Amino acid sequence: MKILFAVLAALIPAAAQAAMVDDVRAYRTAHEAEIVGRLSELTRMRSVPADPEGLTNTAARLQALLQERGFAAQLLTAAGAPPVVFAELKSAGAKRTVVFYAHYDGQPVTPAEWHSEPFTPIMRAGKVDAREVDMKNAKPPYDPEWRLYGRAVSDDKSSIVAFLAAFDALKAAGRAPSVNIKVVWEGEEERGSAHLEATLRANHDLLASDLWLIGDGPMHQSRTPTIYFGARGTMGLESVIYGPLNALHDGHYGNWVPNPAAMAAEFISSLRDAEGGIAIPGFASDVRPLTPAETRAIAALPPVEEQLKREFGIGRSEGSAGLTASTMRPSINVRGFRAGQVGSSAANAVPTEAAVSMDFRLVPDQTPAAVRKKVEDYLKAKGWTIITADPDLAMRTAHGRLIKLTWSGGYAALRSDMDSPAAKAVIASAGRAANAQIAILPMMGGSVPINMFADVFKVPIIGLPIANHDNNQHAADENLRLDNLWAGIETYAGLMADLNW
Amino acid sequence: MKILFAVLAALIPAAAQAAMVDDVRAYRTAHEAEIVGRLSELTRMRSVPADPEGLTNTAARLQALLQERGFAAQLLTAAGAPPVVFAELKSAGAKRTVVFYAHYDGQPVTPAEWHSEPFTPIMRAGKVDAREVDMKNAKPPYDPEWRLYGRAVSDDKSSIVAFLAAFDALKAAGRAPSVNIKVVWEGEEERGSAHLEATLRANHDLLASDLWLIGDGPMHQSRTPTIYFGARGTMGLESVIYGPLNALHDGHYGNWVPNPAAMAAEFISSLRDAEGGIAIPGFASDVRPLTPAETRAIAALPPVEEQLKREFGIGRSEGSAGLTASTMRPSINVRGFRAGQVGSSAANAVPTEAAVSMDFRLVPDQTPAAVRKKVEDYLKAKGWTIITADPDLAMRTAHGRLIKLTWSGGYAALRSDMDSPAAKAVIASAGRAANAQIAILPMMGGSVPINMFADVFKVPIIGLPIANHDNNQHAADENLRLDNLWAGIETYAGLMADLNW
Repeated sequence: MKILFAVLAALIPAAAQAAMVDDVRAYRTAHEAEIVGRLSELTRMRSVPADPEGLTNTAARLQALLQERGFAAQLLTAAGAPPVVFAELKSAGAKRTVVFYAHYDGQPVTPAEWHSEPFTPIMRAGKVDAREVDMKNAKPPYDPEWRLYGRAVSDDKSSIVAFLAAFDALKAAGRAPSVNIKVVWEGEEERGSAHLEATLRANHDLLASDLWLIGDGPMHQSRTPTIYFGARGTMGLESVIYGPLNALHDGHYGNWVPNPAAMAAEFISSLRDAEGGIAIPGFASDVRPLTPAETRAIAALPPVEEQLKREFGIGRSEGSAGLTASTMRPSINVRGFRAGQVGSSAANAVPTEAAVSMDFRLVPDQTPAAVRKKVEDYLKAKGWTIITADPDLAMRTAHGRLIKLTWSGGYAALRSDMDSPAAKAVIASAGRAANAQIAILPMMGGSVPINMFADVFKVPIIGLPIANHDNNQHAADENLRLDNLWAGIETYAGLMADLNW
Repeated sequence: MKILFAVLAALIPAAAQAAMVDDVRAYRTAHEAEIVGRLSELTRMRSVPADPEGLTNTAARLQALLQERGFAAQLLTAAGAPPVVFAELKSAGAKRTVVFYAHYDGQPVTPAEWHSEPFTPIMRAGKVDAREVDMKNAKPPYDPEWRLYGRAVSDDKSSIVAFLAAFDALKAAGRAPSVNIKVVWEGEEERGSAHLEATLRANHDLLASDLWLIGDGPMHQSRTPTIYFGARGTMGLESVIYGPLNALHDGHYGNWVPNPAAMAAEFISSLRDAEGGIAIPGFASDVRPLTPAETRAIAALPPVEEQLKREFGIGRSEGSAGLTASTMRPSINVRGFRAGQVGSSAANAVPTEAAVSMDFRLVPDQTPAAVRKKVEDYLKAKGWTIITADPDLAMRTAHGRLIKLTWSGGYAALRSDMDSPAAKAVIASAGRAANAQIAILPMMGGSVPINMFADVFKVPIIGLPIANHDNNQHAADENLRLDNLWAGIETYAGLMADLNW
């Protein structure tokens, strides 16, 4: 990587590169309050699956923000899905067109787990135990270690705000984009983007481009500016396992009436072992091996495991392959389970049912349909009767091991070519903006539906994450570190201003 | 049993037996509203662990009810425990003294799971889907299939009300008890009676007797009047298994950061299998086998398994030994578990911790200390580090498998002699009151701390349950079927009026 970066960087006059970054940084320094205000405004909008109106309002607001900047912006709609914000801006003399993708929806929230209201953004001087900053009286420049807290503040509204601020900074400096820009900001990513592919195909010509840049995901844990060339796929699975119709005294019946919580434990343990390994025979038979280049890229990453164990308070890892190598494998994650009660509310009773929430992370060349079939075949072989709706009494009494499965949001993984001309141009441009060596990941552990983009458009798909890795993404107290936003603005501006190939 | 019953019944003049039952039934018929009103009044009192004042108020009310009836009543108190209601009434010419035990506390409630308020008793025409009865306008005699709903209405306030009504009925008929009566009504049974033994020992002479009658537990599922000669012991175990300090995106970290929900599944599955069998090697090494008489008593019970499978909506049982034989074994019951979220609230995150609530049912000659040691030794051998308080960061990072264990409420099981003179007298007296063959259980599957009574007082301990088996004991919509209360009053009166040996 060092050699590649040095060679590419040498092709660009150092003065032009430094001048662009200086311009953008000067603009940002003068507009910190406005940029943070924009991120706060968007975080206040409840764009989560539980609030369809919040999603729609957010899409309308984003459309307006793009129109204010001269973009031709519209909402691409599909029944049952939040609108896709699409916008376009041509640049005189540009020969390439780049789509900037992000998503404006956030993960569901459990407010009781948060230290502040998820949709009332607040600034803290650092991590969640740091003092709250009085933003009414705070004067820029802000401490770059400050963090803004709120659902979707980093995942993924930070990318949207970085894009807007970068565009504004270039405009203020009189610098025209080097590429034609298209924007695709969707609102269903956290639920698996079930309707997105149909919308993309229906608007295939409108969305024609030479490259997609995916503004999503966290930066590498070393805080090195990061590019990724793929992402794991995902699919969700909600399961319900049935016990007796009514909760029953577990002394009188507990050895005889099947216990659905114990059955759920058996169900989970039969799918994945304590090292994260998947116990389904043949599950990995369609997994594409890493290429030597991908393996080398992983080996070149700065080591972060010991730092992360301290940061996360864990005494072991699942498996011994190291973090990035581990996330190159398919996985089954238990997101949660529920049965009966625990602690002071626990009654001595056999629960009526147990619920288990899981998601699967897919790698190339797994498909959601194949994963589903393997899981269901395996469960049937283990004696489970799979149903898709709540059972009636006849169903309950006819089958000893009933499990209701509800699959959702499936899409496949992508690892795209790290050596295409577009890939080389992006690596070079991001490196110039950062003025540093960058981290290159063959595939991100998390999921964005970028395989769909590759399938539909047959162009390079490259990820450009800006959020701090410790942003509590998908959990309580999600946050964005200001320094990441500042660096992200420079990266976005750098790509807009000098990307070409 | 048929022969035994016939021989004993023949010793008592049929006329006296019929007259006593007629008197009691006539009293009950004339006082149904008052008796149901008493049970409603007590059910309204929030005598659950979460409400210490509710427990204290209930004890004071019970003391007053006994004093109104001429009992010398007092509250036996211990620091940290609800009072034990003790009362005594001598009967002229009686040579035996019998302690009537019951408990006035109920299991914790989860109101959201109930169809009515747990502490606002309502009458329904049958099971929970039956119409509500307008008790303000209902005129006795009530339909005996009606059921009163509320926490502790059956477990165990029904026994207390049956005792009071039986006493009142005998008094109204001018019938003196055949034995001296002592009353022990405790308030900590549903939490394991942790303070009771010390209170009993401190009042050893005050509580001297020839027999304890345990008014707790459900009747046999065949609705046959029931006597039991023991009960399983119990101990509770709350476990917490630790994942990362903050919930982490399960795509980026899910294959590498240990998942506490998956670890909890492994923990549960390693303790008990899907058939309820306990997987800890040597766990049953101190279990006392059933005697031939006990095995015969179980074989003589009416079969209920097929009826119960339909009633409970289950398609299989754990193990193949049949219900009563199954509950003669030790067991591990999963009362509940919690981690992350499920359904629409599920976030794609590795949860921070998983909680598992279990109780153990003990059989003779297991002890709580030995069970605890076996469980903990087994977990240590499986690589768990056992802690008893929340871990700090150093503890978390030093150990890969941390589990916090909180044991509670342990006591041992009892199976007492079915052939003692007192046992024979109780069987005969209960049979006369019921005018039917009764169900004799060597040991009840559920737990009452009766081994403690045997240990402390070295007298026979015999169980006399009156609640319907389908009373939703320990669960939502706990209820008492009126016919069970009516029959219970007759059984209590029969024992008070003619028990002797």
